[in-house]
Amino acid sequence: MDDIFFMSQAIKRAKKAASLGEVPIGAVIVKDNKIVSSGYNLREKKNNSLLHAEIIAIDRACKKLGVWRLEDCTLYVTLEPCPMCAGAIINSRIKRVVFGGYDKKAGVFGSVFNIADYAFNHKYEVTGGILEEECAGLLSDFFMQLRINKKGVRLL
Amino acid sequence: MDDIFFMSQAIKRAKKAASLGEVPIGAVIVKDNKIVSSGYNLREKKNNSLLHAEIIAIDRACKKLGVWRLEDCTLYVTLEPCPMCAGAIINSRIKRVVFGGYDKKAGVFGSVFNIADYAFNHKYEVTGGILEEECAGLLSDFFMQLRINKKGVRLL
Repeated sequence: MDDIFFMSQAIKRAKKAASLGEVPIGAVIVKDNKIVSSGYNLREKKNNSLLHAEIIAIDRACKKLGVWRLEDCTLYVTLEPCPMCAGAIINSRIKRVVFGGYDKKAGVFGSVFNIADYAFNHKYEVTGGILEEECAGLLSDFFMQLRINKKGVRLL
Repeated sequence: MDDIFFMSQAIKRAKKAASLGEVPIGAVIVKDNKIVSSGYNLREKKNNSLLHAEIIAIDRACKKLGVWRLEDCTLYVTLEPCPMCAGAIINSRIKRVVFGGYDKKAGVFGSVFNIADYAFNHKYEVTGGILEEECAGLLSDFFMQLRINKKGVRLL
């Protein structure tokens, strides 16, 4: 069991999101080499701005483990987290974050800024770029398809 | 109807949190001068790191209005938001944020850093320090009581 395996599990969840017409982002939370919870982006389907993959996975992990401190957990997510999700990671004391693609528009583990540069009450490890090409490819394929569909609609 | 009125409504929610033994932070979301939703900190009671007052209020507003874009809404919260909540505010396109006390340890509307200094895909207004003394007082009273109780326990 390693980062590649668990990231591929997050990619599986991202593909589920895509199949529902959601931006394909998926996440899993791992403790003792086992998946505790998972989630995928459901913002549009549920009309809820909070429902990023990471938030759903953290919510489920808290409920499953019965604790708000996910201290021995690693979160795998296909895209660099946004401020909301990075903040949720800090608040839930997650030990390690592993992400796939970089997000130049909203990622805060190095892209827009690095939240780890600021002192909060929790230290964590971050690894980026795991299965980056596959994770980023899912997103570019999704948006390309969206443009094709929109063009199609316009032509009708 | 003004900022003082709606902040006092957020303070009411913060007091509810305190009565449950939660750190007293409360929030309300307002649209067209009416309260759409509210929330108070429930992290300990629900064992869930996501359950800050702002997150609960945003979740309820999305559900009530049936949209993820809370574009014409103002969020009132008794304490300067943390990265998670500031990110949720950005993600939900809230128009204006009004907070009471400043949070030197976790606030990201000027205290630890100012998230507005970074370009995300949403612009918003921020007003801090509304009923600051009362909001901060709630927190200092709560933590003082906690210390007294702990001391009491030790003496028994």
